[in-house]
Amino acid sequence: MKIGLIGLGRMGGNIARRLMQAGHEIVAYDRSADAVATLARDGAIAANSLDDVRGKLDSPAIWWVMLPAGAPTEDTIAAIGEGARDGDIVIDGGNTFYKDDIRRAKLLAGKGVHYVDVGTSGGVWGLERGYCMMIGGDTGTVNLLDPIFDALAPGLGSIPRTPGRVADVVDERAEKGYIHAGPAGAGHFVKMVHNGIEYGLMQAYAEGFDILKSKNSDKLPEDERFDLNMTDIAEVWRRGSVISSWLLDLTAIALAKDGKLEGFSGSVADSGEGQWTIDAAMEEKVPANVLTASLFARYRSRVEHTFGDQVLSAMRFGFGGHVEIPQ
Amino acid sequence: MKIGLIGLGRMGGNIARRLMQAGHEIVAYDRSADAVATLARDGAIAANSLDDVRGKLDSPAIWWVMLPAGAPTEDTIAAIGEGARDGDIVIDGGNTFYKDDIRRAKLLAGKGVHYVDVGTSGGVWGLERGYCMMIGGDTGTVNLLDPIFDALAPGLGSIPRTPGRVADVVDERAEKGYIHAGPAGAGHFVKMVHNGIEYGLMQAYAEGFDILKSKNSDKLPEDERFDLNMTDIAEVWRRGSVISSWLLDLTAIALAKDGKLEGFSGSVADSGEGQWTIDAAMEEKVPANVLTASLFARYRSRVEHTFGDQVLSAMRFGFGGHVEIPQ
Amino acid sequence: MKIGLIGLGRMGGNIARRLMQAGHEIVAYDRSADAVATLARDGAIAANSLDDVRGKLDSPAIWWVMLPAGAPTEDTIAAIGEGARDGDIVIDGGNTFYKDDIRRAKLLAGKGVHYVDVGTSGGVWGLERGYCMMIGGDTGTVNLLDPIFDALAPGLGSIPRTPGRVADVVDERAEKGYIHAGPAGAGHFVKMVHNGIEYGLMQAYAEGFDILKSKNSDKLPEDERFDLNMTDIAEVWRRGSVISSWLLDLTAIALAKDGKLEGFSGSVADSGEGQWTIDAAMEEKVPANVLTASLFARYRSRVEHTFGDQVLSAMRFGFGGHVEIPQ
Amino acid sequence: MKIGLIGLGRMGGNIARRLMQAGHEIVAYDRSADAVATLARDGAIAANSLDDVRGKLDSPAIWWVMLPAGAPTEDTIAAIGEGARDGDIVIDGGNTFYKDDIRRAKLLAGKGVHYVDVGTSGGVWGLERGYCMMIGGDTGTVNLLDPIFDALAPGLGSIPRTPGRVADVVDERAEKGYIHAGPAGAGHFVKMVHNGIEYGLMQAYAEGFDILKSKNSDKLPEDERFDLNMTDIAEVWRRGSVISSWLLDLTAIALAKDGKLEGFSGSVADSGEGQWTIDAAMEEKVPANVLTASLFARYRSRVEHTFGDQVLSAMRFGFGGHVEIPQ
Repeated sequence: MKIGLIGLGRMGGNIARRLMQAGHEIVAYDRSADAVATLARDGAIAANSLDDVRGKLDSPAIWWVMLPAGAPTEDTIAAIGEGARDGDIVIDGGNTFYKDDIRRAKLLAGKGVHYVDVGTSGGVWGLERGYCMMIGGDTGTVNLLDPIFDALAPGLGSIPRTPGRVADVVDERAEKGYIHAGPAGAGHFVKMVHNGIEYGLMQAYAEGFDILKSKNSDKLPEDERFDLNMTDIAEVWRRGSVISSWLLDLTAIALAKDGKLEGFSGSVADSGEGQWTIDAAMEEKVPANVLTASLFARYRSRVEHTFGDQVLSAMRFGFGGHVEIPQ
Repeated sequence: MKIGLIGLGRMGGNIARRLMQAGHEIVAYDRSADAVATLARDGAIAANSLDDVRGKLDSPAIWWVMLPAGAPTEDTIAAIGEGARDGDIVIDGGNTFYKDDIRRAKLLAGKGVHYVDVGTSGGVWGLERGYCMMIGGDTGTVNLLDPIFDALAPGLGSIPRTPGRVADVVDERAEKGYIHAGPAGAGHFVKMVHNGIEYGLMQAYAEGFDILKSKNSDKLPEDERFDLNMTDIAEVWRRGSVISSWLLDLTAIALAKDGKLEGFSGSVADSGEGQWTIDAAMEEKVPANVLTASLFARYRSRVEHTFGDQVLSAMRFGFGGHVEIPQ
Repeated sequence: MKIGLIGLGRMGGNIARRLMQAGHEIVAYDRSADAVATLARDGAIAANSLDDVRGKLDSPAIWWVMLPAGAPTEDTIAAIGEGARDGDIVIDGGNTFYKDDIRRAKLLAGKGVHYVDVGTSGGVWGLERGYCMMIGGDTGTVNLLDPIFDALAPGLGSIPRTPGRVADVVDERAEKGYIHAGPAGAGHFVKMVHNGIEYGLMQAYAEGFDILKSKNSDKLPEDERFDLNMTDIAEVWRRGSVISSWLLDLTAIALAKDGKLEGFSGSVADSGEGQWTIDAAMEEKVPANVLTASLFARYRSRVEHTFGDQVLSAMRFGFGGHVEIPQ
Repeated sequence: MKIGLIGLGRMGGNIARRLMQAGHEIVAYDRSADAVATLARDGAIAANSLDDVRGKLDSPAIWWVMLPAGAPTEDTIAAIGEGARDGDIVIDGGNTFYKDDIRRAKLLAGKGVHYVDVGTSGGVWGLERGYCMMIGGDTGTVNLLDPIFDALAPGLGSIPRTPGRVADVVDERAEKGYIHAGPAGAGHFVKMVHNGIEYGLMQAYAEGFDILKSKNSDKLPEDERFDLNMTDIAEVWRRGSVISSWLLDLTAIALAKDGKLEGFSGSVADSGEGQWTIDAAMEEKVPANVLTASLFARYRSRVEHTFGDQVLSAMRFGFGGHVEIPQ
């Protein structure tokens, strides 16, 4: 198929390459002419504006927007929508808030334009491993786009099939690494929860390694200390343990380079999805202590002291004359 | 009554004074001769050793030990126990772990010595307000000591009586500010949970003020900011609001001095009781998310970054090539 | 002053009464004619429609809307705004989300109408104790309304003044129990955080009493149990302890009636404010583990089992063949 | 090597089988004569008492104790220690608290007996996949036992090697699935933290699936609902996503059988390790909000209502006259 790919960053560029490797045609556009030129050398059709892309696409036109969530995606999809014709398809492959998808899909449906949201996991490893995709949109359109998703997905690969699944297949695409989750917004909703879970998993490992590392600390009495090796522990857990995972693999790689992780200060960013997941939990009245604590640990990692900490110190001084302890 | 008071720090000294004001006699001992001399000027009988105290007490001897929990208390009580006679009474008024009380009470009972544990709340304000006391020990001994507890307690004072309580009194001492909670250990157990709750209350206020203060922050877009006044907010909540409390009073005092609390860095200590409360919760299989989060917030306040934070950063770099954000 | 009071429920009715006691005139309206009649017997001017209220108010008209947040308040204020004249004042005394205040204030400002939001704490006790109020709006209007707020507030009363505050007064109204927190929305924002804190305080006590109560449980080995008396413990903490508070007073009242609280099943509701407080924390990137855990504990209290619990059981069965334990 | 294997339950029996498959000899004993007979049919040397085992072992004797933690393990190791000779080796392969290991190792060292603790992960899948082992003990003994551990471990298998590890090997055994973590106790300490992490990972998935499932709930307004398929979502995440893991594989298996997990009520047990991990965190002053919340979620899953919930309801009734909501 012929796809207009808007946004040739790390993710967009690799998606374009994986699609071309599978025989699809890419009309490529990015604000950066360099990024366009680079991808053109890999076989893409270069474009220098959204209009230029449109002129080079078939009818119905298929657009894949791969831009930062928020204004860049919003404005681009609005501009595409302006000039779109009945039957055109706009795919948002970024990290959009699912309620924005629902709103946009309604808006575009008024002009006969189909909106598809694709939550994509796999990061920079996707070109090699394939992308896990969670897709929202109307069934006809999602089915029409199947060759695109099939090309991007990891496929069955070497991962063992789930026992019990083979006989009674629900959505066979799931085994290839993509699903049609529901109407517009459902793709990004599932991806959002995926990222919420990711925060929780990461924090569980983080706390565990912190407890291990601190057991070596000279703040403990000498006879209570061990001398545990973080690198070997991460490695051994990859082998047959209940907590083996891809995130643990990444941890093992980092610890193999430096068991003290001295290159990392520990100031940890969060994207919108962690927060939106908690919003969803609260809308649904679902207790989500672990996912929330994971998000808050990241907030906390980015400040030296909170005003809350100062309030605590002030109270302690008030009732007991306690002075603060030196760190 | 005549009481040997061991440990004349901030708490011990004030307890001695309040007892003397009520007509009790104090035989005072502390490692610091200065502390003894100071209290002697206020009317205490000075002693220069535990043996000296013993010689100056009646029979049965009544000891009130008011020392830091752990070795100082443990060793002192052991030494008192060595020379104790049948019928003597040892009161531990410090912050001892309640299982240590149970152990000691059994040990001393073997020699006919009565052990009483008194959990005391009120801090440096106790001399003026009186001390809230939670007492563990055998009923006969606790009743015998009633004049001491009655003198230390705040009494009915100006605090309105609890409706419904007047008619059907359970333990009338509760209204005067002390209770016999149960056998040895029960006093410190109740005091331990009291402190666990205190951590939770403090952290609730701390988080609330943090959310208020951060609403003024220039990290927010200008049209989302307020310019809230912490000092006035603390004050207004003291007046008729559902969250008025003594801890809020202390917060209001601190914020009246400096609404930015710049004198406090926010490095917050914790004593053993918060931790023991969580231990008890786990032994009883009681979920205690708030009390635990309060304790952990204090741990977190005392380090710049955790190894866990670094592990998160390392994983994020691994799967997405994300570099850390500057603070 | 003459005030149109819309909504004569528990809160609205008592506010009207307290205003009339201070000499203000109330034009009263409620969907329920009975509620209007009841208040008319207490001295209010009865009205049978919004238009009727308008006809009976002076110019500029002062409206106090005291309705459930959401549609009832929204629709009523829209209807008042329709017929409002330049200089009129609309007060929302309910539990409105502060972003709705900001939106409404802008809208009404277009017609010269002043919007004031009043967050009110004090519950059913307010008639007697007075209401603690956090007020948002333009300064001129808030000052104009001062006689109203002054009448509703608890005043200095018997609560001791905050040391250090007397000399260097910031907003003298704070000591009387109300503050002008900032522009429209600021009042409800501060009230929202107040309720967030309230959840945290309540949960801290709840967990503490749970740990105390469970120490009596026959699930513990007999020699690890106490026989603690919840009623007396709540009472004694009211007297001189660091954790005395109005919420503890309420707990003591409940436990004086029934130490087992058997009349309460433990299914706990939450209003919007707890959730909005967490939203605000996330917008500001403030870690708020305690306030969030408090909210989630309420969600959890209202379901028998979560799907998450079932997922845990399914995993445990998967890796270890563990079957579920009977409760 | 010849090993006396005490305890032929699910774990012990499979360990014996995997050892025999690798050519080791097993002298098998269990309280259940049936269990002994079953294993004897698979090639083990049957024994009918500890003394019988001892008589059938070489010198130095090697014992592998695979019993429930606590009294069964404690008593058995004491009994083995009674009759042990200089140079004998006792391996505790169960889930012992690491401080018990340290105590026992000291005790046995007095008689020249070597104590080795082996934390084992892999559950019922270990016979097939091999066991991931974390080992504590003195270096000479652990090295001597290497053929045993090598036989039980999964080995390199099909799991890709960690990049960066190959060139600069730390402990080459880690890649085969076992490590010598440190002196006695270190093995079980690392295994304990492993299980703590496991709780956190499980709870992260559990909360995520709860948020997904609840998005289908008819408690939400109809236009906010999706109709998400749990089975397919678990499956698709196994393929190329960042959160793929063995625990997710297990979840996918369970959901392939029944997407509603109706066979599971959601009453979730916890073993000692989760609790001990929090104890360790507190001893080290490490904030561990996620691991703790995971543990508490299990406690909560096993009771219908907490006394804490009732306290909340009682307070709400007190300040607002709120009655409880029906579930």
